[in-house]
Amino acid sequence: MLEHYLDNSATTVVSPNAAQKALEIMTRNYGNPSSLHMMGLRAENELRAARKSVGARLGAAEDEVFFTSGGTEANNLALFGACYSAQRRGKKLVISAVEHSSVMEAAKRLEAEGFTVSKVAPRSDGKIHPEDVAEQVNSETVLVSVMTVNNETGAIMPVSDIFAAARLKNSAVLCHTDAVQAFGKTDVKARRLGADIISVSGHKVHAPKGCGAVYIKKGVRLVPRQYGGEQEKKVRPGTEAIPLIAAFGIACDEFDIAANAEKVSELNLYAREQLLRIEGVTINSPDDALPYVLNFSAGRIRSEIMLHHLEALGVYVSSGSACAKGKPSYVLDAMGLSRERADSALRISFSKYSTKEDVDALCSGVAQGLRIRAHR
Amino acid sequence: MLEHYLDNSATTVVSPNAAQKALEIMTRNYGNPSSLHMMGLRAENELRAARKSVGARLGAAEDEVFFTSGGTEANNLALFGACYSAQRRGKKLVISAVEHSSVMEAAKRLEAEGFTVSKVAPRSDGKIHPEDVAEQVNSETVLVSVMTVNNETGAIMPVSDIFAAARLKNSAVLCHTDAVQAFGKTDVKARRLGADIISVSGHKVHAPKGCGAVYIKKGVRLVPRQYGGEQEKKVRPGTEAIPLIAAFGIACDEFDIAANAEKVSELNLYAREQLLRIEGVTINSPDDALPYVLNFSAGRIRSEIMLHHLEALGVYVSSGSACAKGKPSYVLDAMGLSRERADSALRISFSKYSTKEDVDALCSGVAQGLRIRAHR
Repeated sequence: MLEHYLDNSATTVVSPNAAQKALEIMTRNYGNPSSLHMMGLRAENELRAARKSVGARLGAAEDEVFFTSGGTEANNLALFGACYSAQRRGKKLVISAVEHSSVMEAAKRLEAEGFTVSKVAPRSDGKIHPEDVAEQVNSETVLVSVMTVNNETGAIMPVSDIFAAARLKNSAVLCHTDAVQAFGKTDVKARRLGADIISVSGHKVHAPKGCGAVYIKKGVRLVPRQYGGEQEKKVRPGTEAIPLIAAFGIACDEFDIAANAEKVSELNLYAREQLLRIEGVTINSPDDALPYVLNFSAGRIRSEIMLHHLEALGVYVSSGSACAKGKPSYVLDAMGLSRERADSALRISFSKYSTKEDVDALCSGVAQGLRIRAHR
Repeated sequence: MLEHYLDNSATTVVSPNAAQKALEIMTRNYGNPSSLHMMGLRAENELRAARKSVGARLGAAEDEVFFTSGGTEANNLALFGACYSAQRRGKKLVISAVEHSSVMEAAKRLEAEGFTVSKVAPRSDGKIHPEDVAEQVNSETVLVSVMTVNNETGAIMPVSDIFAAARLKNSAVLCHTDAVQAFGKTDVKARRLGADIISVSGHKVHAPKGCGAVYIKKGVRLVPRQYGGEQEKKVRPGTEAIPLIAAFGIACDEFDIAANAEKVSELNLYAREQLLRIEGVTINSPDDALPYVLNFSAGRIRSEIMLHHLEALGVYVSSGSACAKGKPSYVLDAMGLSRERADSALRISFSKYSTKEDVDALCSGVAQGLRIRAHR
């Protein structure tokens, strides 16, 4: 059976060059960057090259990039690190109501530790509005955290405007964005976004699972979450995952944001057209969402049922985010979607490798699923 | 130039089968275990198989094994997780004075947060003695953490006796051992050691860097260090590093502890004999140390100078631990070695791939280094 992988926001295939680099490092250039001999030096060179590649994509200096085990660790480091570091100034943080679970749950923990968390809901367009964030910022606020692109709907948040508005209320506030879904797909440059801290992940951009990075603007201090050796300037100790990190660097070198965006935009448009021809389908993603993500509802068929129907046809999609594993979507809920529509929501997500055939397989699968249901 | 890698306690080459497994997962079986479709299920199966393999080596049930990004994270989770979880009972922990930096620094941070840390020094045999640990345990003590094997000297700590003695003083105390250097080389079974929590790392046993695990005995609760999705039963959220984890599983399947120990013991004995023939060389490792590690001092030549002399000959060794990167060894210091001897200490460390030729290259290099120095 031909497989159609349309779940690239959950994870992506590793690019051939990135995988080859990881293999080479595992089997030949396997030194520990902390070792003082040649094998250590070679590993350190790989680390430095990757830091440069990731940094270049973030518009960051090499010493502003810190590797982590992934997006979740990056988000945790950002939230705990910033809040602990700035808590003398205040114990309040503002996040959006549609953040990834790694931001939501870290904030919840901070709340249990005595911080106050304001959650800003998206409006019906699926976006977080700057004035809604600014309204929650006061002199006690130490951190604002709003994602660059929502993982379930692809909604692009006006992050630079949000951060500017927040800083007008409190110039000392630290601004963090979880750019895991945006990185490699739009231009995620620290200065353009006005971000002090940015989280990114490797496995969403054709690097292996187990590696991410956090951008920390020069001068911003985060209290580490992990203690040990001197790796990553003590911000994130532990032997560096060189095979993954080097592969992440290669994946970043391979970004062709403009060309891929054009291709994926066409695919997204095509998918919207084809899906809307099917009776009972409604699109949940904003019109101007990131084209890599397309959220839609199919009749009144529960997401999981349609997901497994499609799976049987070799079409792999998601109901909500992978990290929520089948739970009802708080993101669609926060957008104000009816429970019925939220319960039948599916997310498809493209990569540069996605094809028209993938979309065709999806659409015929959805249409078939609805027909079967109608005849019962 | 032929290379002789004698720094396997710093890191190891990934075994061919483990590397191949990682490659296969990166490029073909690349699903996210949290995804509900077939690709997710396949990834979950890989995860489960690896958990079984690692668990088997620890004498643990599958649900007692939690994957981390490595030994440092495992140690941090153990220390912070246990101390936070048990702090109603007391705020005291006991560690040895020769722990890895990830235990030392985590304890230091806990100290800054109000915990009291007792450090037990090794005796001149390089070992931590049970009665010395027990002496520090009182009703306020919530955690005892002593490594199974020291990373710089190979000293094998009588961990099960230490934990038994500690529990005689306080039956509620949690017992953790950092088994990073012991795992795969001696039989690290939870029940035999009497450990509640065990840290292990992949890259010391021919799995890739970026993956480790923590054994948590059923019923023991650790406060997580990371918050997010439901992965690893919320003890350690974040998309699982499947390529590494599956490779770690393969590496564990390949352990042949008895056969390798026999081979490496012979090599160690040979190295000791050859080294002691060189005037000015003294052995720092205990006679009954783990044979994989051999620490010695070469005349009065500073470690780094000899290290670089050997490096030029293609022989790669370590001065102290890789994670300390050239700093004077607090481990040898705690053992009571003279500053001179500590300053000229080198560590060689074997793997199952090490050969007599590696040892010969080392010994002729050391002898040559001492001669050059003598003639200056």
